[in-house]
Amino acid sequence: MSKIGYLGPKGTFTNIAVSQAFPNNELEPFSTIPSCMDAVKHEEIQYAVLPWENAIEGSVNLTIDYLVNQKLTIVGEIIVPIRQHLMVHPQNRDCWESFEAVYSHSHAISQCHQYLYKHLPHIEFSYKSSTSAAAKHVKENPEQRIAAIGNELAASEYGLDIIKHDIHDFDNNHTRFVILSKQATDLEVKDSNYLGDRTTLMITLPTDHYGALHQVLSAFAWRKLNLSKIESRPMKTGLGNYFFIIDIEMKYDQVLIPGAITEIEALGCKVTTLGSYPYYGK
Amino acid sequence: MSKIGYLGPKGTFTNIAVSQAFPNNELEPFSTIPSCMDAVKHEEIQYAVLPWENAIEGSVNLTIDYLVNQKLTIVGEIIVPIRQHLMVHPQNRDCWESFEAVYSHSHAISQCHQYLYKHLPHIEFSYKSSTSAAAKHVKENPEQRIAAIGNELAASEYGLDIIKHDIHDFDNNHTRFVILSKQATDLEVKDSNYLGDRTTLMITLPTDHYGALHQVLSAFAWRKLNLSKIESRPMKTGLGNYFFIIDIEMKYDQVLIPGAITEIEALGCKVTTLGSYPYYGK
Repeated sequence: MSKIGYLGPKGTFTNIAVSQAFPNNELEPFSTIPSCMDAVKHEEIQYAVLPWENAIEGSVNLTIDYLVNQKLTIVGEIIVPIRQHLMVHPQNRDCWESFEAVYSHSHAISQCHQYLYKHLPHIEFSYKSSTSAAAKHVKENPEQRIAAIGNELAASEYGLDIIKHDIHDFDNNHTRFVILSKQATDLEVKDSNYLGDRTTLMITLPTDHYGALHQVLSAFAWRKLNLSKIESRPMKTGLGNYFFIIDIEMKYDQVLIPGAITEIEALGCKVTTLGSYPYYGK
Repeated sequence: MSKIGYLGPKGTFTNIAVSQAFPNNELEPFSTIPSCMDAVKHEEIQYAVLPWENAIEGSVNLTIDYLVNQKLTIVGEIIVPIRQHLMVHPQNRDCWESFEAVYSHSHAISQCHQYLYKHLPHIEFSYKSSTSAAAKHVKENPEQRIAAIGNELAASEYGLDIIKHDIHDFDNNHTRFVILSKQATDLEVKDSNYLGDRTTLMITLPTDHYGALHQVLSAFAWRKLNLSKIESRPMKTGLGNYFFIIDIEMKYDQVLIPGAITEIEALGCKVTTLGSYPYYGK
């Protein structure tokens, strides 16, 4: 049975996603997104499960930026609803309103911004690399007057008490997690609902890109290829230079998508297919 | 002389930007981006200077997301080169290679990823709300074996020793800082080079947005309006719903830009002009 890596530590939302997609495999947490991708490349694990895009915060830049420099392929996607809870060390459950600091991932703190602004206006924010690392820190420091924001798995994993459920500002918040592999492969995720297929492209415009994005979109539009996402990321070569991540709502076919790519390349763009894959949710 | 707010604490890159734009005004640091914008709205300060976009990390999501819900206007922009240095408490300058943790803003740590991966592979990352808060933390904890990443102003502000200059991975890294005001106004920044004018629009597509972005770009393309930026941000209403921030490389005129906006609105889009303003650099 092959081993699956994910962005750890235990108790992250990625842990929830990987447990949903691979309930019977051995799971290995990695401390950083690049180290998890490197392990797939070196065949230490078969798949990596990493956060890709959150409905509130947008794309997870490090996953995108590192992936586009690797030769890995997206072979599947899991969509997980995001629910954030306020949790404390069991010793401190009666004095939480006088707390000095709340620990969490910066995205989780942003997602609870209205709640914190209203109910804990003077609390200091301390950023950790994950919601789970924040829960661990709170567990290990019972003498400090601090709370963590994270999911139920983190609370149970680190033995914290949830004192306020669902403190996130917006309902209908989900995160997309990608499953990465060294080779393209037909992945079937049991126990989750199949929702559809996507093809994800990375497109770099020519440096003199006046009007180029308009031309690129024309190649999709006249073929009625439905784009469910278009997002720009900086090229790291200076302000104003971007590449684009585009999701097409269909499986890579033999005619329409290759035809669009050929035309776009003829315009002077560079196109990389990051994957064509099924996506799943509960 | 009017008061200018900025994202503090003292010693941030925003501090460098605001000192460059307003060398003779009273400056007031704010601890969060929303509180600084609120102070402009309530006329406690005349202008707010906030980070907008970094060449490596992309847009500063909190500035964009909070601005689009406010009635503030961008009246100017300052472009600042970003140089990151490794700094320690003066007591610890001889033992830094055995350090356990490096403190900084998550963007600064990302910007120095290759350096840290190569020279300090086992160091733990601790995230602070700013490079300057990280420098302050290192100064206040000389007994800990920790370093900070930040700029020269932070090192001098908090009395730290720079042990390695320019550890950022990519040269040619700059950050755009916007100057926000309650009313549109002609702002003149002395002591800095005028580089050009921009108009920034926020465009929300109709929910059934198949092909809508292509139509929007057509309205700019046939008028030969040069777009230097197009970036999507999630609407916070669910995965797959985006709004777009678009920069046009010219001052708001009486014919071309209003004509494009009228057509785009007729397509069912919502258009907000976030500002039309000069931008400056050194």
